[in-house]
Amino acid sequence: VRAAVLEATLAELAEFGYRELSLESVARRAGVHKTTLYRRWGTREALLLDVFREIARQRAPIPDTGSLHGDLLRYARQITASVTTPEVSALAAAIASEGPNNPAFADMLRTFWAERFEVGAVMISRAIERGEVSAESDPKLTLEAVLGPIYFRLLVSGEKLDPRFIKRLVELVASALEP
Amino acid sequence: VRAAVLEATLAELAEFGYRELSLESVARRAGVHKTTLYRRWGTREALLLDVFREIARQRAPIPDTGSLHGDLLRYARQITASVTTPEVSALAAAIASEGPNNPAFADMLRTFWAERFEVGAVMISRAIERGEVSAESDPKLTLEAVLGPIYFRLLVSGEKLDPRFIKRLVELVASALEP
Repeated sequence: VRAAVLEATLAELAEFGYRELSLESVARRAGVHKTTLYRRWGTREALLLDVFREIARQRAPIPDTGSLHGDLLRYARQITASVTTPEVSALAAAIASEGPNNPAFADMLRTFWAERFEVGAVMISRAIERGEVSAESDPKLTLEAVLGPIYFRLLVSGEKLDPRFIKRLVELVASALEP
Repeated sequence: VRAAVLEATLAELAEFGYRELSLESVARRAGVHKTTLYRRWGTREALLLDVFREIARQRAPIPDTGSLHGDLLRYARQITASVTTPEVSALAAAIASEGPNNPAFADMLRTFWAERFEVGAVMISRAIERGEVSAESDPKLTLEAVLGPIYFRLLVSGEKLDPRFIKRLVELVASALEP
C-alpha cells in the first residue's frame, strides 16, 4: 500500500501540481480507500514528507568511498541523476513555487532538509577524523555548497547538469575544506 | 513608459504568475496601449528579459572593493537583499516553476544568466590579475558557487538567508580559489 501511495503522490504532483494535491486525489489514483491515507498520514504535508524521505533513501544514500572528494562526487552524481528525472524535477519545481507561501509546506521542507543535512554530515565528520579536512569544516555549509549550484541549474538558470560541471563543483568545494 | 511597464510586469507576475502574464495584461495595468508593448518588446519573454536586466542593473551592480572576498561578499549581500523582496522572490518562484517546461522562457533565462556571468566574471579576473587567486580559477563556477546556495535556501530548503550564512558561504568559496 505504501509504495502505491507514494508513487501515486509523485504522479499527481507531476500532473496537477501541489495546489491540486489532496489525500483524496492520491487515494483515488492509488486505488486505496481515503480513510487509509487519513489514518496513516493525516495531512498531505505528512504524506509528502514520507515521499521525500523515500526518494532520498532510495536515490541518495550516503556514500563511503574513503575520501571526502570521492564521497561528495558520488553524492552529487546521485542527486543530479535523481533531480533530472521528470518526476523529481516536477517535484522540485512544485517546491520552489509553493514553498515560501505555505507555512505547513515550509515546515515540512525544513524538517526534511534538517534530516538530510544531519545524515549527510557524516561525510564531513569522517573526513575530519581522517585529518583530511580542517577540523573547523562546517558539514551543513559544505552540503549546501554542493547542492545549491545543482538546484540553481535545475530551477533557476536552466543550464545543463553535465558531468564536467559536477566534477568541478565538487573539486571547488573539497578544496575549500583543505586544512 | 518603460519604467511603468517593467513595474507593471513585476506586479502582474507577483499577483497572477507567469502563465497569466501577457503583453495585454501588462499594458492594462501600466495604462499603456498594447501596441506600444508589441512594438517595443514583441513577446512576453523579451519583456521579461528587460525586467530581469533592469533588476540586475539596479540591485546587483558589480562591486570593486579591492579584494575577491570583499567583492563576493558585497555581491552576495546585494543578491540576497534583492531576492528576499516579495516581488523578486515571487519572480524567482515563477522562474522555478515554469522555466524547464517552456522553451521560449528557458531561452530567455539562458540569455540572461550568460550575460550576468559575463559581467560578474570581472570580479574573478581582477583577482587573478592581482595574484590573489589561482590563475586557473573559473569565474562562472565561482559565481554559481555563490549564487547556488542562496537560491537553494530561497527556493528549496526555505531556510533563512541570515548574514552569517552569507559570510561563511563567501569565505568557503573565496578560500577554494586561493593559489
